[in-house]
Amino acid sequence: MANSPSGDSMTDRIVRVLETFTAERSMQSASEIGRRAGLPSSTAHRIVDELVAAGLLERDEDRRVHLGMRLWELALRGSTALRLRQAALPHMEAVQALIREHTQLAVLEQDEALFLERLSHPDAGANITRVAGRLPLHASSSGIVLLAHAPGELRDRVLASPLRAVSPETVTDAARLRRILAEVRRAGVAVAPGWIESVSTGVAVPIRDAGEVVAALSVVLPREAPPEPAITALRAAVRDIELALRADRR
Amino acid sequence: MANSPSGDSMTDRIVRVLETFTAERSMQSASEIGRRAGLPSSTAHRIVDELVAAGLLERDEDRRVHLGMRLWELALRGSTALRLRQAALPHMEAVQALIREHTQLAVLEQDEALFLERLSHPDAGANITRVAGRLPLHASSSGIVLLAHAPGELRDRVLASPLRAVSPETVTDAARLRRILAEVRRAGVAVAPGWIESVSTGVAVPIRDAGEVVAALSVVLPREAPPEPAITALRAAVRDIELALRADRR
Repeated sequence: MANSPSGDSMTDRIVRVLETFTAERSMQSASEIGRRAGLPSSTAHRIVDELVAAGLLERDEDRRVHLGMRLWELALRGSTALRLRQAALPHMEAVQALIREHTQLAVLEQDEALFLERLSHPDAGANITRVAGRLPLHASSSGIVLLAHAPGELRDRVLASPLRAVSPETVTDAARLRRILAEVRRAGVAVAPGWIESVSTGVAVPIRDAGEVVAALSVVLPREAPPEPAITALRAAVRDIELALRADRR
Repeated sequence: MANSPSGDSMTDRIVRVLETFTAERSMQSASEIGRRAGLPSSTAHRIVDELVAAGLLERDEDRRVHLGMRLWELALRGSTALRLRQAALPHMEAVQALIREHTQLAVLEQDEALFLERLSHPDAGANITRVAGRLPLHASSSGIVLLAHAPGELRDRVLASPLRAVSPETVTDAARLRRILAEVRRAGVAVAPGWIESVSTGVAVPIRDAGEVVAALSVVLPREAPPEPAITALRAAVRDIELALRADRR
């Protein structure tokens, strides 16, 4: 149905169009979209017209398009992401009020850590993560927590793949990472000093729902800050988030 | 391209599938989706399979599907909704810390108020709005602000349509609403006592970006609370949000 000669579905082509939008590139012409999505110009124009007609994209006076509010609504309204995030937000605010640094919520998505929420204190330090942004599983404290609790086959696949150094201190040795993951499972917390940026330390703990780790809650501390107060605050927040998720299940 | 005999595009059919998901109905079988979307069962199964293959839907062990994290990511990554919401969130937190009631951010979408964010204080009162939920423009304080600043033709269309009473106190008389909208433009604030629920008063102010009203910031107060402290807090937050939006444009 609706498959092109190359065998990709109409859904694939819509995804390729949507993938061309990023935080830095939120407005594009249909021709730019076609080029970036690797689609013939006529196909790109047709898909963009369809997406505009459905409200998933919105067109400006200069005919450039951006992601539509309707797409945002459809993607969020019944989503697990929103459920998790709504359960977590008040307790993330409590962590932020106490620790006064970036507080983040991440899930495992396509072998990476996808950030669902980030609260940033005005006085907080450097932080490269952003909402709807990703980080490698092996390099971020959130990723390490998610990887530690991931199915064994996913863990093996990630550890067997090239482990990119995000900073000079990122651990890229698979055997050493395996030991770290075992320790994270035992201790219930991941501390990643300088793994993403040399000036900061990530601290993350797992969030469980119905017995499964579904997300990681983290803070990004200045490198020299002691992690203990953050760990205590994160654990208190996770207890409350897990209660909220359980209440929400009923 | 990919149009069915009834003339709806593949994009339309994907939207109809996504529309069947709501906060109350986040997990469905392909057959349920087909029935609710008014699509033939074989079509619904094919579209669901495509959406699952692309990660926009995710399938459970029991073969029911839910909205995927990948859809959430694609819808948010380059979105105006996220940009607005990120600019507003720290200042919404400031309002909430001061007023200790629900604090909300809404935009105009398809002749309704669509809520992008809601912060809820644990002690706050009743509130029927939710993130990615909607309210009629004429009945909510946010909607009244958005309607007051909407293009004249949209305002005429909404005022000419049947104005549903959400509560016994919702204003449903078009002439009276016109006078209220003019007063909201003059005063820069909308106060809606009991229009949505008799126990609460909505208070909303406009947020401008590049000279245009792009959103409404609101709080939901207990009916008997004086609105003045909330108006002061909302206006201070809007000044900061507008500065953040301006900084973000550069």
